[in-house]
Amino acid sequence: MSWLPIPPDHYFSINNIPFGIISTPTDTTPRPAVAIGEHVLDLRAFATSANGFSGLPDFARSEEEVLTSERTLNRFASLGRATHRLVRGYLREVLSADTPHPGILRDNPEARKACLLNGAEDGVRMHLPMDIGDYTDFYAGRNHAFNVGVLFRGRENALRPNYEHLPVGYHGRASSVVVSGTWVRRPRGQVVKPGEGEGGKVPVFAESGKLDFELELAAFVGRGSDLGSCVGVDEAGEYLFGVVIMNDWSVRDIQEWEYVPLGPFVSKSFATSISPWVVLMDALEPLRTRPLERETKVPLLPYLQEANSKSVYDIPLTVSIKTHHTVTGCPLRTGDLLGSGTISGTDTRSMGSLLEMTANGTRKVPLGDSGEFRGFLEDGDVVVLAGGCGKAGVGFGECVGEVLPAGE
Amino acid sequence: MSWLPIPPDHYFSINNIPFGIISTPTDTTPRPAVAIGEHVLDLRAFATSANGFSGLPDFARSEEEVLTSERTLNRFASLGRATHRLVRGYLREVLSADTPHPGILRDNPEARKACLLNGAEDGVRMHLPMDIGDYTDFYAGRNHAFNVGVLFRGRENALRPNYEHLPVGYHGRASSVVVSGTWVRRPRGQVVKPGEGEGGKVPVFAESGKLDFELELAAFVGRGSDLGSCVGVDEAGEYLFGVVIMNDWSVRDIQEWEYVPLGPFVSKSFATSISPWVVLMDALEPLRTRPLERETKVPLLPYLQEANSKSVYDIPLTVSIKTHHTVTGCPLRTGDLLGSGTISGTDTRSMGSLLEMTANGTRKVPLGDSGEFRGFLEDGDVVVLAGGCGKAGVGFGECVGEVLPAGE
Repeated sequence: MSWLPIPPDHYFSINNIPFGIISTPTDTTPRPAVAIGEHVLDLRAFATSANGFSGLPDFARSEEEVLTSERTLNRFASLGRATHRLVRGYLREVLSADTPHPGILRDNPEARKACLLNGAEDGVRMHLPMDIGDYTDFYAGRNHAFNVGVLFRGRENALRPNYEHLPVGYHGRASSVVVSGTWVRRPRGQVVKPGEGEGGKVPVFAESGKLDFELELAAFVGRGSDLGSCVGVDEAGEYLFGVVIMNDWSVRDIQEWEYVPLGPFVSKSFATSISPWVVLMDALEPLRTRPLERETKVPLLPYLQEANSKSVYDIPLTVSIKTHHTVTGCPLRTGDLLGSGTISGTDTRSMGSLLEMTANGTRKVPLGDSGEFRGFLEDGDVVVLAGGCGKAGVGFGECVGEVLPAGE
Repeated sequence: MSWLPIPPDHYFSINNIPFGIISTPTDTTPRPAVAIGEHVLDLRAFATSANGFSGLPDFARSEEEVLTSERTLNRFASLGRATHRLVRGYLREVLSADTPHPGILRDNPEARKACLLNGAEDGVRMHLPMDIGDYTDFYAGRNHAFNVGVLFRGRENALRPNYEHLPVGYHGRASSVVVSGTWVRRPRGQVVKPGEGEGGKVPVFAESGKLDFELELAAFVGRGSDLGSCVGVDEAGEYLFGVVIMNDWSVRDIQEWEYVPLGPFVSKSFATSISPWVVLMDALEPLRTRPLERETKVPLLPYLQEANSKSVYDIPLTVSIKTHHTVTGCPLRTGDLLGSGTISGTDTRSMGSLLEMTANGTRKVPLGDSGEFRGFLEDGDVVVLAGGCGKAGVGFGECVGEVLPAGE
């Protein structure tokens, strides 16, 4: 319970305390903040104007600068899990109804005025929370991998033999990761028109007719690792900062033509949207659960076996965070973004992309009760991804993007 | 001709003037410099101690800060091609035997002492020249693409139909790009042992037995582009800063198992070495020539057709720089690195990787006249890539890497 009014089942309850980067009409410098219900706590003002970290003197003395002088969360993230735990825990205390630090905010109207914003009324604008060095996208959703595999390669070859053994992933494009609310322009590129196969047929240069979304979760790297060193699966959690919800926009006609043999390239590099509030790893701990049963009897190689049997989160989305990434020595940098891959169930209503729902556009699906149907996205469509567990009071901000027509 | 002694056919002649980032034992702060023969001109000292840009007053007044206060070349690169031309042209004048600015360095012993270093004697250390946001690797070498295709997929499917139409490429890992001289540790990962195919056989976790190099050229992005905008092929040159030689280290056994369907991942993200001196685009102009004849009669789509018939460089390596990259609106950032893909001829001696030379390790090749043979790289091997045109006095610094054994 917080002394602030928070609607029941709100994703930004006292159990969450997600971190983000805000600016306001009266102060346009981007700066760190946390969300609590419909409110936003400006951490720069909290530290400087309200002396808010005086109840956490070690942090105030030596480290609060990472929250007061930075335009991204990278330096805070680089301090590691113990510091994130300390600061998030302290802010939970400060915001709790029975706070041991009543003089910091609860009983201090002047301090509240200095650093507590109402997200909507005060015109809080959200920015990309991290400076992203590299963006990796996995293919962790088995149902998605199977569904797409059937559409692109047929049922026989839908899942390749390696899928049972390693977390398939690829390098995405960091420069095109944008914060929720950023528009997405329909891309042009090379597509082979329906009815024309690969057999000698030639592509045309055209607007994509198969613009799609992909529902994913994505984790930010906190602590980095060195070139040539490996991060084991059981220590992976210590290297992560937090999680956002992600829309990995894709153009399926361009993807299908370009992706063999080196994987998706310009078909996914035009935009990837993320929700603005980073839910820290500790906030997800109550949602830990056992992973789904493996469908194969072949055991994972030992380096991928996790000691903690509750190795995934039920949010109600389920994501398994793996670390095969560093096995050959690839270094991680603070701010690197690791996507889960599209997360799908087995029936149409639980699929995470239109590619799957519509069987590559061959059948249209109804949009809720609106009376509208879609094969792929149309210009002007606004895609909103969301997720969280209301009962636990932990979830993600919305991930929103509007489709603009192709440019001239 | 320079007033400095430069050995004949040296790649760093007065016609080159490549830019890099140096430090010295007496001043360990990384800072911009240019190479001239075996000498290095410290640009921070040139600007500050020797007032060297006084002959270029507009630059000295408003922009020289990008060379005096930065640890990378990103800000200089972001100023665009016209500024690179101005600064490089001025430095060529200053270093020319018949310089119109004799008082700056040639006839000014004190200034020479302040900023002119002897690369070897003064212990000049080279650093990564740019802060790399994204690293893209193309597959521009047709012979390489065909050779590898035959080995991985058979002659029938060696080149996919898309290869004739678009520049196949993929996103690489920026965090593992290292400067020449950095060691490379042999990776471990999932490999399927010889004789065991994909048909139900399972991989083991082991040291790679197929560590390979790839000879490539790579271009750095200078000026960036915006999300949703496209850079046309004929304006691409204006967006590039310069070129380095690159070794895209690869482990073929891990690659072959992991790369379908999303492309190479950890098999190439453990290290990518680049030469330390960036040869600016203007220095390559004299080496422009016509591209090889296309092997197919199918014309390129108009958006990929270049107006300049001399669209490639003969260095004697040949690289074609294409811009399909931004077609769907992917933004470019200053410092992004664009690799050519491995460049191979048609005979064994002109192939750019051991994978091709040895037909995936099935035949060993002699190493020059040393009496030694190699299938793939062995621990302790040092790979040195080099290239340039001595007659034109333009070429690249070496790209060197030593193979360390796998870690514990």
